[in-house]
Amino acid sequence: MSKTTKGSFTLPGESGYEALTLELAERWGADVIRDSDGTKLSDEIINAGYGIYSTICIIRDHNEWASRNLDKLQQCFLITNPKVAVQDYISIYLMEDFFAEQFKVNDSKEAFKYWQVYDRTTGEEVPREQWNYERESGNVVLTGIVPWHKYTVSFLAYRIWEEISMYNHTTNHWDKEHLMQIDPIYTETQTYLLDWMEKWCVQHPETTVVRFTSLFYNFAWIWGSDERNRHLFSDWGSYDFTVSSRALDLFAQKYGYSLTAEDFVNGGKYRVSHVPAEKRKLDWMAFINDFVIEFGKKLIDIVHRHDKLAYVFFDDSWVGMEPYNDRFEEFGFDGMIKCVFSGYEARMCSEVKVDTHEIRLHPYLFPVGLGGLPTFKEGGDPTLDAKKYWINIRRALLRESIDRIGLGGYLHLVEPYPDFVAYIEKIANEFREMKELHQAGKPYELKTKVAILHSWGKLRSWTLSGHFHETYMYDLIHINEALSGLPVDVQFIDFEDIRQGALEHCDVVINAGSAGSAWSGGEHWNDHTCVDILTQWVYEGGTFIGVNQPSAVPGYDHFFRMAHVLGVDEDTGARVVHGKWSYTVKDEHQLVPEGATIKGKNNIYLTDGAATVVNDQDGDITLSTHDFGKGKGIYLPSFEFTWANTRLLLNLIRLAGHEPSEPKYISDNWYTECAYYPESKILVVINNSDQAQSTTVDTEYGRQTFTLEPYDTVITNIGVMKSVKD
Amino acid sequence: MSKTTKGSFTLPGESGYEALTLELAERWGADVIRDSDGTKLSDEIINAGYGIYSTICIIRDHNEWASRNLDKLQQCFLITNPKVAVQDYISIYLMEDFFAEQFKVNDSKEAFKYWQVYDRTTGEEVPREQWNYERESGNVVLTGIVPWHKYTVSFLAYRIWEEISMYNHTTNHWDKEHLMQIDPIYTETQTYLLDWMEKWCVQHPETTVVRFTSLFYNFAWIWGSDERNRHLFSDWGSYDFTVSSRALDLFAQKYGYSLTAEDFVNGGKYRVSHVPAEKRKLDWMAFINDFVIEFGKKLIDIVHRHDKLAYVFFDDSWVGMEPYNDRFEEFGFDGMIKCVFSGYEARMCSEVKVDTHEIRLHPYLFPVGLGGLPTFKEGGDPTLDAKKYWINIRRALLRESIDRIGLGGYLHLVEPYPDFVAYIEKIANEFREMKELHQAGKPYELKTKVAILHSWGKLRSWTLSGHFHETYMYDLIHINEALSGLPVDVQFIDFEDIRQGALEHCDVVINAGSAGSAWSGGEHWNDHTCVDILTQWVYEGGTFIGVNQPSAVPGYDHFFRMAHVLGVDEDTGARVVHGKWSYTVKDEHQLVPEGATIKGKNNIYLTDGAATVVNDQDGDITLSTHDFGKGKGIYLPSFEFTWANTRLLLNLIRLAGHEPSEPKYISDNWYTECAYYPESKILVVINNSDQAQSTTVDTEYGRQTFTLEPYDTVITNIGVMKSVKD
Repeated sequence: MSKTTKGSFTLPGESGYEALTLELAERWGADVIRDSDGTKLSDEIINAGYGIYSTICIIRDHNEWASRNLDKLQQCFLITNPKVAVQDYISIYLMEDFFAEQFKVNDSKEAFKYWQVYDRTTGEEVPREQWNYERESGNVVLTGIVPWHKYTVSFLAYRIWEEISMYNHTTNHWDKEHLMQIDPIYTETQTYLLDWMEKWCVQHPETTVVRFTSLFYNFAWIWGSDERNRHLFSDWGSYDFTVSSRALDLFAQKYGYSLTAEDFVNGGKYRVSHVPAEKRKLDWMAFINDFVIEFGKKLIDIVHRHDKLAYVFFDDSWVGMEPYNDRFEEFGFDGMIKCVFSGYEARMCSEVKVDTHEIRLHPYLFPVGLGGLPTFKEGGDPTLDAKKYWINIRRALLRESIDRIGLGGYLHLVEPYPDFVAYIEKIANEFREMKELHQAGKPYELKTKVAILHSWGKLRSWTLSGHFHETYMYDLIHINEALSGLPVDVQFIDFEDIRQGALEHCDVVINAGSAGSAWSGGEHWNDHTCVDILTQWVYEGGTFIGVNQPSAVPGYDHFFRMAHVLGVDEDTGARVVHGKWSYTVKDEHQLVPEGATIKGKNNIYLTDGAATVVNDQDGDITLSTHDFGKGKGIYLPSFEFTWANTRLLLNLIRLAGHEPSEPKYISDNWYTECAYYPESKILVVINNSDQAQSTTVDTEYGRQTFTLEPYDTVITNIGVMKSVKD
Repeated sequence: MSKTTKGSFTLPGESGYEALTLELAERWGADVIRDSDGTKLSDEIINAGYGIYSTICIIRDHNEWASRNLDKLQQCFLITNPKVAVQDYISIYLMEDFFAEQFKVNDSKEAFKYWQVYDRTTGEEVPREQWNYERESGNVVLTGIVPWHKYTVSFLAYRIWEEISMYNHTTNHWDKEHLMQIDPIYTETQTYLLDWMEKWCVQHPETTVVRFTSLFYNFAWIWGSDERNRHLFSDWGSYDFTVSSRALDLFAQKYGYSLTAEDFVNGGKYRVSHVPAEKRKLDWMAFINDFVIEFGKKLIDIVHRHDKLAYVFFDDSWVGMEPYNDRFEEFGFDGMIKCVFSGYEARMCSEVKVDTHEIRLHPYLFPVGLGGLPTFKEGGDPTLDAKKYWINIRRALLRESIDRIGLGGYLHLVEPYPDFVAYIEKIANEFREMKELHQAGKPYELKTKVAILHSWGKLRSWTLSGHFHETYMYDLIHINEALSGLPVDVQFIDFEDIRQGALEHCDVVINAGSAGSAWSGGEHWNDHTCVDILTQWVYEGGTFIGVNQPSAVPGYDHFFRMAHVLGVDEDTGARVVHGKWSYTVKDEHQLVPEGATIKGKNNIYLTDGAATVVNDQDGDITLSTHDFGKGKGIYLPSFEFTWANTRLLLNLIRLAGHEPSEPKYISDNWYTECAYYPESKILVVINNSDQAQSTTVDTEYGRQTFTLEPYDTVITNIGVMKSVKD
């Protein structure tokens, strides 16, 4: 049991529940009270001596101004589904596939010049002379075209309903005004918003922290006309919702070339975050970042002038604000708040350059949680939910410090759940104790340094694109989550970093993803300089861990460019009649803990028979190691985040780094993990399972055995403990 | 029980077992006695009044001449495994990876000029100045190269052990001379062989049929130095073993350009039959076919001059003799003999333009069968084996006529197996009765005409590349096998056929295979003319059945070029964050029989939600239909040959052809099938299962019900049967 402490806790207050608010603020050790979407703080709460966070969403909540400036709503490109011409003309109704409450065709002169019609059979643009927009009917009519080819129209549309409120509105069947989102790219919008911000600050003297619910542009979320496929496209990392004819014009002036609709819609695939970005997309991202920083800073400056702090809640309308792009500090934010389900999200938050890092824990104080399952209502078990989220986040907090935690939602919902209230009290104390440990000094970690190599590199550190449940289909998010609580140094690098010498500081490079994805690297692997550097680096002692289709790109003798290092490759069809090396499975280093599960994928074969197959499943190689010079190639066809697999990953990293085979400060039971803080001699042992566990940890003071309740944490000073007999 | 008849049966005789030979010849109704590899016919057998087949393998059995002409042995290109340079030089031992008893480096001046060294990191050839062959050590030494790149050497090698005898020799641990194979590309070899053939004919007056064990060039079969990977490369359809410096020189003279080693070795992948052939490969095939026809014809002419017939056994050294290339008739063969495991092989044989089509049944009269399992020895059950093979072949024989059947091997092995002798007697009689039915007139078939579309088209009708067990991993062989016994007209077409109007005579086009394979079509799908023609043809009533990755090629808005017709497409990664259409599974036409199994593959999604999902498995679409104009697109992610799936395929074809939903001459129990011969009013009903079955067939004389023993055949004149009550 942690000692009772105070501070570093943000409580969601609720007007009408003043007594509860103040009671729980005391019990949970809150130093700040916040409002939430849907709650207000009464004067009694505001004046109770706590810091006050106030939530603002800068681009919505301006419907009055927006309705007078409909030409300054935010926009995006849309593309119709391809339609086959059965004659030499065809008519295409633009809005057929799209949710009419979200979009409105932008047929202004400025926007129209960016429309495009494509023959998708040939992939060529149809000249403007061959098509005509009929405004009345909303159709584009093509004439003189080739029968049996298929055609699309790409056009600009206004987004007339802010997506997050649209989602909450439709999910909860609200009956209220649709909120619109205004685009600060227009100078009129900027003038209006700067004025509004100034007035808001004047009107809210009690606020100590202005919490921006992100900034201007939402991630892309295109809704469809048919309930059978309502969410046509959702990409948390996409810049598709930043576009407008004005932004496109400004871009062309600045970069000397124009982007087209096709640069965004990409034949209907859009430019998803999971595929490597071309230069044109990167230019656009840089352009938008410039603008978001420039104008965002003006708003933050106003907040500062009113002696308030500016924190940003990193979520929905985050686009253009990349916390890892080296320019994030220019905003001048004082803190970042991140809602977290997973350990990697905590790590992502903790490493951003701001003064205060705060995480918003789950479950939110809402009747239902993600996916509509009950939380604070009949059938829910919010305490169990809290425990399950906490075990994922706790291990990350042990590795890197976070400054604050907090909750969001309707506080009164906790009243019937005293065990939840008690558990949050426990968590809050535990958190403050862990934070204190970090202040005394960094936890012990292996000397082995790990780099994750992908096409986004540092820019998209830890996260792929949003939350775990949005990217679970990618091996890398599982790896990131496993790494978030392991005692290793982790950095995220891209291919340019390799060319610039980043490998000098790495012992292990992990490249994990499907061929062509941003995570595997796609066309970046055509640059043989990177292959050469990696090859030499492994030969001289590095370890390349490849997962799924690492370094894969077509056009060479092997599909994996690093096949010579891995000792395995994938057959994409040309080797189906080639012989396969037989092998004997042997795990001489006990790399694979009992309970670990690796799913075989793809047609993996041994290139020259020299690799050791450590594990296989039904004849599929599921783990191999291959000596290459002083280094190694290690291959896994997939990686899923489980506790046993997390231990497997740690074992691979230890093997790669030639770490001692009898390690200190690693528990012998993979349901448990530990962190050791040498300065304070404190060992924290955690139980990640829902069962009681016994676990032994070798320390410089001898071997210590611990018994932990389900999900529990033990914090001890091992300098004063007796060691168990070996 | 079929009536007892005589003829159309080839018996393997065996010297020393004259009584048995003549007894079984009588019992099985043989009209021909043959020798086999390893058996001889005694004078008693030869003079017993039967036709006599004699087996010759024209390119081996000439060791005396071969040892005097080692420079006229057959050759091939080999490529070393890529090796990484850790400095600016590297030494590569050519024979490191290869079976020294099969290959010998050909470093003659003529051959050496075709050697190539490649930097496989860049994919570029290394100039000759930078490498040197050290004959003594057998190494190629590269200097002045880029460290950390990987390099290969491609070289010509003599094949010093004929592959089929090498296989038999090593498998049976023989201790005898290695047979070599001589290359008829050399004029000296030609002179020698023509003379030998002439003498052979003179010395074998008793022979009525000279049975060529194929002709000159074996399919490619490269053995490795390591027992862990003995069979490095085996491609039954490959022309890799036809190459020599002389052939390459002659090719260059004739075609005006030279082929290189890389045209064969393809970075170690070789040019496998399962990948579409480029023009250079097609030119080479044409060149080799010209030669094989030209010289083969000379040998056959000699046989004819001696008043013997010339049959060819279509197997091992078949290369250059394409039975479906429009030129096969030029050889002048009188018959083709095909060993068959499967129905599609019988169909392949039956449609070749020769007078006599003969199939060699399994099991062969050998102690062990394929894969080393016992046949005519303890633990074997040759009668059951015969039944299992027969049910696959019988249904094909009901569709298209074959002229003769026969066996091969050591006749004396059957002595302890009287049930086998009796079963062959039954089969022989059944076969002769079926053959007679065909002579009276063709069996009833559906009006729906099916075309299989792939990159080889007619040239590789029915077979993909060898036997079923060599190509089981391809959906198409399963489809071909299912089709081989279905009452539909089947043709094989390529993309040029489509451009030339072949669809005019088709109701259904099936395109089945993985992306990039010869069977799906690979780059052929870049030609939008074919897409246009197919699109129009479906719109006007045709049906396109796509299996696995039909019409798939990267670079367009959809991965499947026929996605607009199929209503489904595969996501190759760019659509992972796109919405998926929900659907309700409905099988309104009862297409999927109970017991059918379709395995979901790939990331298949509905393009516009308009397709009907007929079947799914764990959320993967496993069968969909999509109306397109008057026609349809039908999609299956995979197809495995089972009896239930065969019925599923028939149902799809019937749906596509708008055949009546209450069909005649289709059994209502998919374990059974039937064929009806209108001219003779004979209905043949077969039981494909190992259980007794009851089955009802609707005929023009009413519904008839049959009860069949396991594997059994019932042949009845329905014109005289009483119908059962409906």
